[in-house]
Amino acid sequence: MNKKTALIVYAHPEPKSFNSALRDTAVKNLKAQGYNVMVSDLYAQHFQPVISKTDIIGELEDPKHFNYPNEVGAAYKKDSLCLDVKQEIQKLKLADLVIFQFPMQWASVPAILKGWFERVLIKDFAFSFPKMLDEGLLKGKKAVLSFTTGCPGGMFTPNGLLGDLNVILWPIQYCTLRFCGFDVLKPQCSFSPTHADDKQREEMLNDWGTRLKNILTEEPIMFLSLSNFDAQKWFVISDNYVEEQKNKEVGPSVGHHLGKKMPL
Amino acid sequence: MNKKTALIVYAHPEPKSFNSALRDTAVKNLKAQGYNVMVSDLYAQHFQPVISKTDIIGELEDPKHFNYPNEVGAAYKKDSLCLDVKQEIQKLKLADLVIFQFPMQWASVPAILKGWFERVLIKDFAFSFPKMLDEGLLKGKKAVLSFTTGCPGGMFTPNGLLGDLNVILWPIQYCTLRFCGFDVLKPQCSFSPTHADDKQREEMLNDWGTRLKNILTEEPIMFLSLSNFDAQKWFVISDNYVEEQKNKEVGPSVGHHLGKKMPL
Repeated sequence: MNKKTALIVYAHPEPKSFNSALRDTAVKNLKAQGYNVMVSDLYAQHFQPVISKTDIIGELEDPKHFNYPNEVGAAYKKDSLCLDVKQEIQKLKLADLVIFQFPMQWASVPAILKGWFERVLIKDFAFSFPKMLDEGLLKGKKAVLSFTTGCPGGMFTPNGLLGDLNVILWPIQYCTLRFCGFDVLKPQCSFSPTHADDKQREEMLNDWGTRLKNILTEEPIMFLSLSNFDAQKWFVISDNYVEEQKNKEVGPSVGHHLGKKMPL
Repeated sequence: MNKKTALIVYAHPEPKSFNSALRDTAVKNLKAQGYNVMVSDLYAQHFQPVISKTDIIGELEDPKHFNYPNEVGAAYKKDSLCLDVKQEIQKLKLADLVIFQFPMQWASVPAILKGWFERVLIKDFAFSFPKMLDEGLLKGKKAVLSFTTGCPGGMFTPNGLLGDLNVILWPIQYCTLRFCGFDVLKPQCSFSPTHADDKQREEMLNDWGTRLKNILTEEPIMFLSLSNFDAQKWFVISDNYVEEQKNKEVGPSVGHHLGKKMPL
């Protein structure tokens, strides 16, 4: 069996945080299984999250009107991206499993990690049209969001204050990761460690360590396939698929609910 | 009538972008109506989106274990936040209407704007427990997301490639803005201006200008009220409200769908 490689993209500024304990748990457990483990420690690396002309070395394609996605797409092909982006791309190319470890902030990833998505998931490396979803350029890699929250878990339910967690994560899990081809595994949620006692925190770490033992055999979250869309109609769900779903009471996914009940 | 004040939080790096034209349209139309208009031009200001110890001037409350939300909450009360955050807070205090103008990136706001949420929407200024939702600290202010996309509008529907736009915007419109008390107005979506012709782009600008004439009288998006939750049960939707909704076929909001059909 080939040695597996994991990349942990870690976004917390404080070395004593519970996020850092979750990262360490992952490093230890994956290494014990024989993985190669890489960590991108975004705050420690002073990762720059703002897209900029300096992401491209040398001449711009159109210096008079800076269009970031086009410029970095071209720079990727010419191997003229700046060093930190090239390094992250290189790590991502090697990874079979990518773990995003972060504290949920405003129902999303921290700005520094959002900037990683913007600067690293580049056109023609991470996505292209119409290489998307299960046909995406990062196909074959698995991704999992592992995060802590400030609020208790009950707040992230369809009856809780912040609403359905699957709705909250849709832009990241589907529109970003799945769009690029990742198989997205269910999130690892460590709810409100600040308000937990030592024993509960220990349990959260143990749960994560245990889960990691078989994580690559997990069934990914169900999303629609590229073949469910009609490329001739600008990627609207195909008539065939709508017909197939006609008598089902529940929609296939939260974003593609087809006006039906939400899947839980 | 008191003079109204608008704040445009603008996040695009290129002065020739369509986002900048949308911003200019807003400035012109609001000024013509007699508004005071302020613009926070995040890229031009070199706005720093990464949370950091340097956001607090002077002693930390707990220098051994840096907890950002607690530290900035305390610094807000002691008036010891760094200057750029103080300036943004001051503008936000004055604003009756806040327009967020940005290109949608990875189904969310750009990292630089995400960082604005993290650094400016501070505990005890923008939110507190249990001052949330319609009782939130920024109550009485209206917010609207005005954004451009790279994909056509059809992709942001329950049958489109990226799925239901209301799902995509839930973390921002509800979990962030509504959580802090804003009345959130429906988004202004300028779909794929790059692929539009001059006439279509002109129409998008005119639509925005026209809408702004009466924007403060618009009905905000319907979200649940704080009184719909049971504070005794960690803010789970109250039994009363669930009972009220019992015979309805459609859920009250995308995040609080109650296992029913999604509202469109």
